[in-house]
Amino acid sequence: MVTPSHLEELIAALRCLPGVGPKSAQRMAYHLLQRDRAGALHLARSLDAAASNIQHCSKCNNFSEQEVCALCASAKRDADFLCVVEMPADLLMMEQTQCYRGKYFVLMGRLSPLDGIGAKELHFDRLVKRVQERPCEVILATNFTVEGDATAHYLATLLQSQGIKVSRIARGLPVGGELEQVDSGTLAQAVLERREVIV
Amino acid sequence: MVTPSHLEELIAALRCLPGVGPKSAQRMAYHLLQRDRAGALHLARSLDAAASNIQHCSKCNNFSEQEVCALCASAKRDADFLCVVEMPADLLMMEQTQCYRGKYFVLMGRLSPLDGIGAKELHFDRLVKRVQERPCEVILATNFTVEGDATAHYLATLLQSQGIKVSRIARGLPVGGELEQVDSGTLAQAVLERREVIV
Repeated sequence: MVTPSHLEELIAALRCLPGVGPKSAQRMAYHLLQRDRAGALHLARSLDAAASNIQHCSKCNNFSEQEVCALCASAKRDADFLCVVEMPADLLMMEQTQCYRGKYFVLMGRLSPLDGIGAKELHFDRLVKRVQERPCEVILATNFTVEGDATAHYLATLLQSQGIKVSRIARGLPVGGELEQVDSGTLAQAVLERREVIV
Repeated sequence: MVTPSHLEELIAALRCLPGVGPKSAQRMAYHLLQRDRAGALHLARSLDAAASNIQHCSKCNNFSEQEVCALCASAKRDADFLCVVEMPADLLMMEQTQCYRGKYFVLMGRLSPLDGIGAKELHFDRLVKRVQERPCEVILATNFTVEGDATAHYLATLLQSQGIKVSRIARGLPVGGELEQVDSGTLAQAVLERREVIV
């Protein structure tokens, strides 16, 4: 036995992190033990505190330490709009634009039947119930990937059947984008979804 | 405040891992909270146990839970040979070859003046003291990088001045290597360090 068992166990435990294989886990363990033991102990405490204290907001499904998160509880947010995003990181991106003042619903994923993620796992029932209680326009801001598009399509069908107004964020050339450099799929969509110019 | 503070703290703490930037840390934190809380708690315990229990072996400087590691304590290992490697991972690679039955000394790094890593940080004094107490052949198995070569050169000069026999592992074409595919530096070294054929 060359490797001490606590070290072996740490290397195995680090593999629970996404994108970390055996070689990276070994490198991380050696780095922590050799150069940053204080960091390792701090990480241990942070993992413990986060796993024990963070739940999902009962309204928007985002991570939260309270039953209802600060954003959902805020009276300053416009309850006439509900933006549906895939992940908390998408919500942060939306907030950084500072152009949206409505509420959110975080799916914590996207429809992916092959991974066993369906309507139930993404809490579509809670989303429908929420919109029925307080009608509003639902803005679908899932990614423009195959799975994100499928999720948006499914949600649009579901919500419109309940008489709810549903919109999708626009697809097209990015700001500063040049026709020569954009992929043909995006350009084709930009032509299809063209808007009348009002002067 | 959109991100709960325990989550922010976890994301910051994950940055102590090598090669983990803000985006990866966020992705890791979300993954753990959403899909693998048990893994997060297990990782926390493993970090804690490793950082608290793993020290350096007083003989070979490798990670060890005992004062002297199992390999150094073993009577089966040949004390006539001492192999100097940079990192514990290198020791494991040497062990996997199953061709070396001597002892080891792990530098836990390489000479790197720009990073402030000199002879003192790599415990060269302990290495010299150890070889003086129990003379043996020192096999330098540091990497064939600029820094690894410099470390080997420094160590060879230091140890030979004490009358100790020093060797360096061979450089040349890899087993199964083809001249057409090898880089010219390696081929040049293979020619320079050619060996007489004994038939």
